Amino acid sequence: MTEILIESEANARFKRWKKLAHEARAVKKEGATLLEGIHLCEVVLGADASVTAVLIDDQRATSEARELAYQCVLNKGAKCYALSSSLYDQLSPVEHGVGVMCEVSVPKRAEVSDWAQADVLYLDGVQDAGNAGTLIRTAVAAGVRVIAASPSTAILWTPKVMRAAMGAHFGAKFVEGITPQAFRDAYQGHIYAADARGGEDLFAADDHYTQGPVTWLMGAEGPGVSEAGLTVSDRRFYIPIEAACESLNVGAAAAVCLFDTRRRRMKA
Amino acid sequence: MTEILIESEANARFKRWKKLAHEARAVKKEGATLLEGIHLCEVVLGADASVTAVLIDDQRATSEARELAYQCVLNKGAKCYALSSSLYDQLSPVEHGVGVMCEVSVPKRAEVSDWAQADVLYLDGVQDAGNAGTLIRTAVAAGVRVIAASPSTAILWTPKVMRAAMGAHFGAKFVEGITPQAFRDAYQGHIYAADARGGEDLFAADDHYTQGPVTWLMGAEGPGVSEAGLTVSDRRFYIPIEAACESLNVGAAAAVCLFDTRRRRMKA
Repeated sequence: MTEILIESEANARFKRWKKLAHEARAVKKEGATLLEGIHLCEVVLGADASVTAVLIDDQRATSEARELAYQCVLNKGAKCYALSSSLYDQLSPVEHGVGVMCEVSVPKRAEVSDWAQADVLYLDGVQDAGNAGTLIRTAVAAGVRVIAASPSTAILWTPKVMRAAMGAHFGAKFVEGITPQAFRDAYQGHIYAADARGGEDLFAADDHYTQGPVTWLMGAEGPGVSEAGLTVSDRRFYIPIEAACESLNVGAAAAVCLFDTRRRRMKA
Repeated sequence: MTEILIESEANARFKRWKKLAHEARAVKKEGATLLEGIHLCEVVLGADASVTAVLIDDQRATSEARELAYQCVLNKGAKCYALSSSLYDQLSPVEHGVGVMCEVSVPKRAEVSDWAQADVLYLDGVQDAGNAGTLIRTAVAAGVRVIAASPSTAILWTPKVMRAAMGAHFGAKFVEGITPQAFRDAYQGHIYAADARGGEDLFAADDHYTQGPVTWLMGAEGPGVSEAGLTVSDRRFYIPIEAACESLNVGAAAAVCLFDTRRRRMKA
């Protein structure tokens, strides 16, 4: 395998990767992202994903990591770059990485026809990358294959979000940067807001799962669902928690809501 | 309010706080921890918690932060220390803190009589501080007020875990460092393992919630429930997720399991 060696911080490719690694806006602008580690690279190999480059840590890459890089070259037509450890470490989101990373093209925004009649998880302002990743992972596990997000939500294809999602990105379609109103205008199912402040008791309700496609709308950490989010929601549900507690983490709340819908459908 | 000014890194108190802020073992050894921010300090003020010291950022503390510090002195008998910003920043888990922090004594380990007949969340090797905190928050929200943890689990009273739990620690009792077998020997309820690898379908089962106290046992990120954990479990449940997905994040899985039990009991 012919690798291109990069040892200088001044290298243009390296400078671009460094932006992708650390600046969410660069991921959005370039339409590309970085994935680190055996698991994520394996997922990418098995997925319908465009891998433009594979990066290895020239000093520390394990034989497993090198083999994966080889597979990316062979099966994805990726170019392979060998980086000195000091450069590699500047791109890696973890301290002791295994030494393999992929540059992947961010897929195109889903078409309206992909989501207007599908189950959707709509993120209405979620800020934390770890939460966003867990939410995507939970949605895909629950059979919800479209992730929509308001303009105020964290960018969803950054290395941090992808790390938390553990590869679930490749099982979903994405509509980022869509306002609640624009989503509502095109969506043909029901929109349910998860709102700790009030609404119907999720567990007491029993008529909200058989009526076609459902979007669960989850709000930001702290403020919760936005006014615009509430406006477009057909119904509002709360999870009956102990009075002593203010609210659930948004990832935990989404797990309860999404799997409540899944359970009811499986029973029906 | 008389504050004691600390401006030197060589100060013995500061050196001790620095250890509490960054070394989980120090939290365990000293039986003390640090909480940062308005929300957590408010929770502490309202809780049956022993606050030994309150720290403010001498340059940047807001008036709200100073008022909270004053309440800690008045109502908790805490000593107040004013730190220069450069020292305060070395203790704070967030970049732009509001400038108030409490040193709190870690409560004594719960007695067997506190948990032998209670609902419990047992953490069997959970490593990530953020996950551990979310799990504690979810348990308390679901009405589960005892958190038990194997010796291999992250220490649960560190600043990072407390931050993720958002104050839920003060609504629970803790039994850290107890092996699955020692827990089983004293526990008088049923132990259910959440295991992505197999067992019974959580949603199909219907006889597992009316039989007295329940412990949900959640495994480590990656490996899942340990052999010792499986051995002491009465039953093993999986959450029916999409085949395309390997597993849920442990926090999401716990939310589904704990609220499944809660929902069934509320219906019964």
